[in-house]
Amino acid sequence: MMNYCFGIDIGGTTVKIGLISADGEIITRWEIPTRKGSDPAGLLQDVKNALETCMAEKQIMREDILGIGMTAPGPVTADGVLQNAVNIGWGAVKLAEEAERILGISPVSIGNDARVAALGEAAFGAGKGANSMLMVTLGTGVGGGVVLNGKILMGESGVAGEIGHMTIDPYETETCGCGKKGCLEQYASATGMVRAAERFLQEKDTESVLRNLKQVTAKDLWDTAKAGDRLANEITDFVCDRLGSAIANAIYLVDTEMIVIGGGVSGAGQFLLDKIKKAYQGKVFAHSRNKKFALAELGNDAGIMGAAVLVLSKVE
Amino acid sequence: MMNYCFGIDIGGTTVKIGLISADGEIITRWEIPTRKGSDPAGLLQDVKNALETCMAEKQIMREDILGIGMTAPGPVTADGVLQNAVNIGWGAVKLAEEAERILGISPVSIGNDARVAALGEAAFGAGKGANSMLMVTLGTGVGGGVVLNGKILMGESGVAGEIGHMTIDPYETETCGCGKKGCLEQYASATGMVRAAERFLQEKDTESVLRNLKQVTAKDLWDTAKAGDRLANEITDFVCDRLGSAIANAIYLVDTEMIVIGGGVSGAGQFLLDKIKKAYQGKVFAHSRNKKFALAELGNDAGIMGAAVLVLSKVE
Repeated sequence: MMNYCFGIDIGGTTVKIGLISADGEIITRWEIPTRKGSDPAGLLQDVKNALETCMAEKQIMREDILGIGMTAPGPVTADGVLQNAVNIGWGAVKLAEEAERILGISPVSIGNDARVAALGEAAFGAGKGANSMLMVTLGTGVGGGVVLNGKILMGESGVAGEIGHMTIDPYETETCGCGKKGCLEQYASATGMVRAAERFLQEKDTESVLRNLKQVTAKDLWDTAKAGDRLANEITDFVCDRLGSAIANAIYLVDTEMIVIGGGVSGAGQFLLDKIKKAYQGKVFAHSRNKKFALAELGNDAGIMGAAVLVLSKVE
Repeated sequence: MMNYCFGIDIGGTTVKIGLISADGEIITRWEIPTRKGSDPAGLLQDVKNALETCMAEKQIMREDILGIGMTAPGPVTADGVLQNAVNIGWGAVKLAEEAERILGISPVSIGNDARVAALGEAAFGAGKGANSMLMVTLGTGVGGGVVLNGKILMGESGVAGEIGHMTIDPYETETCGCGKKGCLEQYASATGMVRAAERFLQEKDTESVLRNLKQVTAKDLWDTAKAGDRLANEITDFVCDRLGSAIANAIYLVDTEMIVIGGGVSGAGQFLLDKIKKAYQGKVFAHSRNKKFALAELGNDAGIMGAAVLVLSKVE
């Protein structure tokens, strides 16, 4: 008899599903479209069909499945309630309970998507072997997660690790998607970087390749900075100063062994990592300066791998 | 046979010592002057004499002592090394090892003073019964500690909980004692509050009782605000806005069940607590707004009580 688990990563567009062995190897992975609705019943029905097809194909019995780990696209409280999932349309829902009922497999363990991805990186990716890790995900938004001794810090109200909504600038006049002003996300998300670029382009006279572009993207900004463009470097320095400050603030709270940078924007690679690290080092006590910084390694698999860890860490 | 431990709280002026029973009751407490020097040997010799006198008086044998908990006035790494203690004059020292050798009692467990005080409050004070707690100490400086499931979060480089050096204002021009600019401590320590008061008094024309004082102290500021003085309320609102923002940032990272405010300035009581809570609520997601805020309860005993927990939590 072999033991398996399913890792399920619910995103706004697709649901990623992985069949994962007890030693953390992905046997097979696939995606289905995310069915939106006012509750998760329809989406879970689609997942159920997908799991059954997979189990039939691989000749896996129900009793070979140790459990299901699932990411939830919103804050999850310590007692397993998803507070809301604005991208998909759900309100507060007992997602783990609901999934156990519809899928007919238990246990189902859930966790916030950014936190679960951090757990995946900690167990199988860039953080492998580290005692503790802070993950910062730079994408459409800025997400994060704190892993201490191999466990995600979940928090009481489901916000632990939400570094993106740390207030970084008390004088900001524009409003963040969350309703507050001066959140890290307003500077360090892909959208925030574009906003910073537009502001610098308007306020400064410096020549720049960026001025030839109709619409600057975060990728353009980093590519141009890497190519040596002065203004693009000023803009990315500004963005990394905000990021370095937020990471330093986070380290003053949780003081992890390492910091892992993930998300789409982390495609800018070592160049980005070096800038963030340099900014961070200017913001902390001397003996906290030599933290290890690394780029995330699991890419799109971080969610399903982390979801698997939710199950496997309970089995061991 | 009864079991006891010693809780030792090393401060810049005095060393507080408590003989504490296994169920957390203080049997006796006393203080000795802090002997300064380039290493802790002299101070530890004084402590040894004090402990021996106490044990002789109370007819307590060496084997009745479960261990010694000790606060250290500086950052302590996960492997028990005190990084520095600027107030006393020590450099980096293996304080627990050194204490075991000189005192002839083991084990000796050490922890940063602010973190250990937080642990004391969590186990026996304002945080009793809570799963997790963030403590913020408003005194000459701003200290802090994070307690998760009854344990202090120590961190890898000894800074976990150092909320006082979170960067709150990226535009600050004056320098904090730590060498950075814009730390919470620059606004929310007793000194920081006086600085804020002086700035407001200079920049504004508003009449205020504070103008009649030769030198404004943090206590004057809070007393005057409580009495209804408009400018004093503007100043304390500003201070609490910075504090509320820092606490919100901390909650976004560690998301504890409650927040405990201690230190000398917390003598301003419920009036201060209400202002901090109100400011905090304006800075976080809706479902994190109803955190419990409380004033610290143990006062000067928090250090020795927390130090005792360092020992007792390992015995149980």
